[in-house]
Amino acid sequence: MLDVDQKHHLHPWEHMGSWKEGERYAFTRGDGIYVYDGAGRRLIDGPAGMWAVQIGYGRKEMADAIAAQVMELPYASPWSSTTAPAAALAEKVAAMAPENLNTVMFTTGGSTAVDTALRTMQFMNNRLGRPGKKIIIAREKGYHGSTYLAASVTGKERDKSCFDFEDRLVRFLPDVNPYIRPEGMSEAAWCDAKVDDLERLIADVGPEYIGAFIAEPVLCSGGVIIPPEGYHRRTLELCRRHDILYISDEVVTAFGRLGHWFASEEVFGIEPDIITCAKGITSGYLPLGACIISDRVMERMTGADHDVLFPNGYTYSAHPVCCAAALKNIEIIERDGLLEHVRAIAPQFQERLTALESSPIIGDARGMGLLGCLEGLIDGRNTPLDVQRTLGARLDEACEARGLIVRPLINMCVFSPPLTISPEQVDQMFDILTDAISEVEEEFAET
Amino acid sequence: MLDVDQKHHLHPWEHMGSWKEGERYAFTRGDGIYVYDGAGRRLIDGPAGMWAVQIGYGRKEMADAIAAQVMELPYASPWSSTTAPAAALAEKVAAMAPENLNTVMFTTGGSTAVDTALRTMQFMNNRLGRPGKKIIIAREKGYHGSTYLAASVTGKERDKSCFDFEDRLVRFLPDVNPYIRPEGMSEAAWCDAKVDDLERLIADVGPEYIGAFIAEPVLCSGGVIIPPEGYHRRTLELCRRHDILYISDEVVTAFGRLGHWFASEEVFGIEPDIITCAKGITSGYLPLGACIISDRVMERMTGADHDVLFPNGYTYSAHPVCCAAALKNIEIIERDGLLEHVRAIAPQFQERLTALESSPIIGDARGMGLLGCLEGLIDGRNTPLDVQRTLGARLDEACEARGLIVRPLINMCVFSPPLTISPEQVDQMFDILTDAISEVEEEFAET
Repeated sequence: MLDVDQKHHLHPWEHMGSWKEGERYAFTRGDGIYVYDGAGRRLIDGPAGMWAVQIGYGRKEMADAIAAQVMELPYASPWSSTTAPAAALAEKVAAMAPENLNTVMFTTGGSTAVDTALRTMQFMNNRLGRPGKKIIIAREKGYHGSTYLAASVTGKERDKSCFDFEDRLVRFLPDVNPYIRPEGMSEAAWCDAKVDDLERLIADVGPEYIGAFIAEPVLCSGGVIIPPEGYHRRTLELCRRHDILYISDEVVTAFGRLGHWFASEEVFGIEPDIITCAKGITSGYLPLGACIISDRVMERMTGADHDVLFPNGYTYSAHPVCCAAALKNIEIIERDGLLEHVRAIAPQFQERLTALESSPIIGDARGMGLLGCLEGLIDGRNTPLDVQRTLGARLDEACEARGLIVRPLINMCVFSPPLTISPEQVDQMFDILTDAISEVEEEFAET
Repeated sequence: MLDVDQKHHLHPWEHMGSWKEGERYAFTRGDGIYVYDGAGRRLIDGPAGMWAVQIGYGRKEMADAIAAQVMELPYASPWSSTTAPAAALAEKVAAMAPENLNTVMFTTGGSTAVDTALRTMQFMNNRLGRPGKKIIIAREKGYHGSTYLAASVTGKERDKSCFDFEDRLVRFLPDVNPYIRPEGMSEAAWCDAKVDDLERLIADVGPEYIGAFIAEPVLCSGGVIIPPEGYHRRTLELCRRHDILYISDEVVTAFGRLGHWFASEEVFGIEPDIITCAKGITSGYLPLGACIISDRVMERMTGADHDVLFPNGYTYSAHPVCCAAALKNIEIIERDGLLEHVRAIAPQFQERLTALESSPIIGDARGMGLLGCLEGLIDGRNTPLDVQRTLGARLDEACEARGLIVRPLINMCVFSPPLTISPEQVDQMFDILTDAISEVEEEFAET
């Protein structure tokens, strides 16, 4: 399988220097929180696929619901028709989302949900006769996807020489991570500084030119960065004051990752103008994304004085089989009480995570709900960056050898296991991490 | 279902002036070439969903293959891993594509396949040290999708005041439709003129600034426009001469629509640098797209001197369940001889289509393979445009009343039935069309 794959399959974020030589897992099956590779090895799926597989693997009910919809009606054009699963899912998602968010446009994943959200802002401001109000404020370390537009608002370190971006439209705010604040600065003062960053940028650019602020509640792919307490509420207020749409990118945080359907309001107390989601909506079992739009926004672009089309959407928008999968997934999360389970188990998860900070090679151990990140730091900040950067890969190897997948990210590793993880499995996972860290510690002590 | 749908579901190309009042089909099930609405009405699915459902509805084998993969492994991150269906599908698609095209990047549909193809061109030219060679030549009436970038290269009539586009990067060639050529001009002279359009644009912009030419072999959503004989080969030669990547957007034409896996080479005799596809790859049963890249292109951006990542791709790239659906779909097309069937039945389909041109309200009846378009024309070109424009909708209504769905497009209606359509069903379909046209004829005769 790997041989054929290497010959013909270009993977996301492929390293072009070692094209056709890259090593990958070849997964053959999954069961609960475990995946199995070709050699029959069982591994705890620390990243839940890609922050996605909330309900775990091997759910017969999902296979049955999906097969039933395939037999009933495997496709219908979302232009000219609707289907029962699409209508029911739109209603369900609207009911779960914050009160003012009641309109759902389905997409094929997170990137297309973000693309659609940003295009909605463009459409609204064109319709409102203010075509100059289009700049998007995004954040360093934010990740929003891989279409040209979604990649343009992504603020992760990357080789700018390789791709092009819609740089006319985007301004970035600096990193909000409390971990990098100057020594001695309180988290409250850090919050003030980060809100000031936004206020200053709005003043510099001019609010009349700014269409949207896009932000993940927790910057996940950037390294599970949790902005300081109060940051979400204050940035939302700033956006409202200047009529800047607040787009909350909940592709990772929605559908239970933090113990709630959506994190924006239930965890951080804000009601965004648009929420984007994907991944957990089907537990990754099938591709689906959604852009959920507030009544405030819809009212400004619909009605008798808007005799125009909204020329956005996809062949696979509201795909009936994917919507049926989402409905069954949501039913399972509800019936099995997975949101409550996450809220109950999160303290144990976070306590074991935080304890890892005592290691001399861990600079920061941070997380929330069932999200965790270990940021490596060798010998204070004196060790050269290129050595620090190997830490993620080293921890990854040491964990893999012990039966746990983590996701290495430069000097970090992140994890977000299936929401079904039991207290015993949380302990297993962190026992492996503790042991793996010890091994890597010793290596670095030797050198 | 429709009531709930209207309240919460924003559909593609929604008319914003009648938001929450739009009429749509509510489809409940499908079987063969038929779909059923909530009232139990059976309709021939003229558009095959959205140019997609090649193998028809209700395929138990598809449900079984999909359910089996869901149970086995419903998700795996394409970043760090591969799966048997993804590897096998990459190999299969590479084998079916033209000889030099052997590398597949999977996406979530046609829009993301086009977005990825265009970003690949940007990446390649950045790596080759020619960052200025980025302009994309596209065509009026071309449709390439709905991400910001894919929409930017789409040349269909639309309200430019509603959305924004990456207009720095795109230049459009005028309509290539032989039907609109000046009276008395031969098709060969029209071809010369259309090739000249491209040659002139390349000279005007400067080939050193042009990165890609993107073209559907047949401009499907634009109204099944078939460029004149020889056009494909000559435009490809022009592109090669100036090192401009030729991207063939086969989202509609691939996987049997014209009786071959891909139309570029097998129908039109060209080997593009990149082919994009989607829809027919799974018969629309699940969302999947692909960007197939030539060895020539891959060689220029990989290897020891390219120590960089290719930061493009999606959470749902190479989704194992979608890839398993594609493999089963391809197996069915092969086993049931659907390519041969299309080639055998196309003459009957095209003959019945062309016969409709005798109606005084049909200006042009054109098609190829199992693609057809009727372009309405009332009373020569003297009737006002706004009346002409109602023709698609009127034909659509008259067909629907008789049990046939067509897709109205301004003054046109288009159709592309499931490839499984029998000779008797082709006759049924065109009998309905003939009858519907008569009704509409009479209406217009009365007014």
